Amino acid sequence: MEVRRYVHNAAYSYTLGMALTVELISQKDSYLIRKIYVHPDYAPKDDKCNIFNICKEARLTVEINQKVFNRLSTKENVYVIGIFEKHAMHVAPGESHIVLVNPSDSGNLGTILRTGLGFGFKDYVIIKPGVDIYNPKTIRSSMGAFFHVRYAYYDSFEEYRQKFTNRQIYLFMLDGKINLKDMKKRKKKTPFSLVFGNEGSGLPDFFHNYGDSIYIEHNHEIDSLNLSVAFGIAANVFSEE
Amino acid sequence: MEVRRYVHNAAYSYTLGMALTVELISQKDSYLIRKIYVHPDYAPKDDKCNIFNICKEARLTVEINQKVFNRLSTKENVYVIGIFEKHAMHVAPGESHIVLVNPSDSGNLGTILRTGLGFGFKDYVIIKPGVDIYNPKTIRSSMGAFFHVRYAYYDSFEEYRQKFTNRQIYLFMLDGKINLKDMKKRKKKTPFSLVFGNEGSGLPDFFHNYGDSIYIEHNHEIDSLNLSVAFGIAANVFSEE
Repeated sequence: MEVRRYVHNAAYSYTLGMALTVELISQKDSYLIRKIYVHPDYAPKDDKCNIFNICKEARLTVEINQKVFNRLSTKENVYVIGIFEKHAMHVAPGESHIVLVNPSDSGNLGTILRTGLGFGFKDYVIIKPGVDIYNPKTIRSSMGAFFHVRYAYYDSFEEYRQKFTNRQIYLFMLDGKINLKDMKKRKKKTPFSLVFGNEGSGLPDFFHNYGDSIYIEHNHEIDSLNLSVAFGIAANVFSEE
Repeated sequence: MEVRRYVHNAAYSYTLGMALTVELISQKDSYLIRKIYVHPDYAPKDDKCNIFNICKEARLTVEINQKVFNRLSTKENVYVIGIFEKHAMHVAPGESHIVLVNPSDSGNLGTILRTGLGFGFKDYVIIKPGVDIYNPKTIRSSMGAFFHVRYAYYDSFEEYRQKFTNRQIYLFMLDGKINLKDMKKRKKKTPFSLVFGNEGSGLPDFFHNYGDSIYIEHNHEIDSLNLSVAFGIAANVFSEE
């Protein structure tokens, strides 16, 4: 079957680049890998980091095929691509969650996964409509963090909240009531959810009803912080000590 | 003279989009504006936010010209472009600085300007080689913060340090000696410089000699934080209380 450039309803996604593909292969017990494509111009750095050896050891099919790269790869120098099956996922009820309401930027989402994983967050909820977490851009900007997190999509925040009841909800809003700086001594007891709105519009006003709203203090020279930066600042404060 | 897509040695740069161009026009005492281009399909939201009225009031030349948009604009819907002259800049000796050593991503740089401005930092130093701060991508991702900051390029960190001596230097390094969390109670006395390395390689080892090295604590599931996220976390902590 011909491999095409990623579309949302495809049954598979892919990793672009050597490092990301090696990360995928290391997760082969969790992800079903269809095939590894190698560019004719691929040259291994050394024997240990040779994609052919790695695939042989992992018992994966390799194919040298330039056409696939022309179709799937962006302008960057990509010599290795890994095709893997998408599968249903769910988040862990006993863990703290990151909830993204209508995120619209694939790159931001990947950066959020990378940052969040670094601060100990493994569970990500996306409220629709929102970008596709399987988009190769997201996987790429996550720098491999994608393969170490759990994720789930919900049609509405209401639906999510009804499913996960016993948890503290923290809403990040420009007009939040609590300064993030005053949250610093919080200790983890029950799991919590950190909720962030869309890049452009933030969380709608009615979210104030769902829990404690928090703001990140900054001056009025800017309208708001970039979503992935705001998330990073918040995740750093809420990370388990 | 024909306006071409931005190149590093051009004498001018430009703002892509209405909001950014309005921001440029509000800075017309600091920036020499050559011309405002308007797309034939431009439709004002209301009289107050009409580019023709705004330009008339600011006494700026406007030209309706579709070709310019085909040349300069990316895929996004851009209906207004402002062309302005580049000019030499310098940073303020008495203020705290953000120093970026060899930054390589225009989008990251813009996000850093936006974040930094929100936390009170107005002075940015770039150590060459580094991305061009006048790149329209940087201006765009700064969301207009570009027009409210000062910046300067230096050939080496050594040159920068010899020019600005009486200041505390904080180096952000993966193997830093001080945990950022322990820096929280610092009070501003003398100005300081926060120094960040390249996205991929960070600061070279010998930077340890230049001052106090700081690390942002995260687990080992990730190699490092994204540069603009790390900067955001640091700038939030170092922002004046």
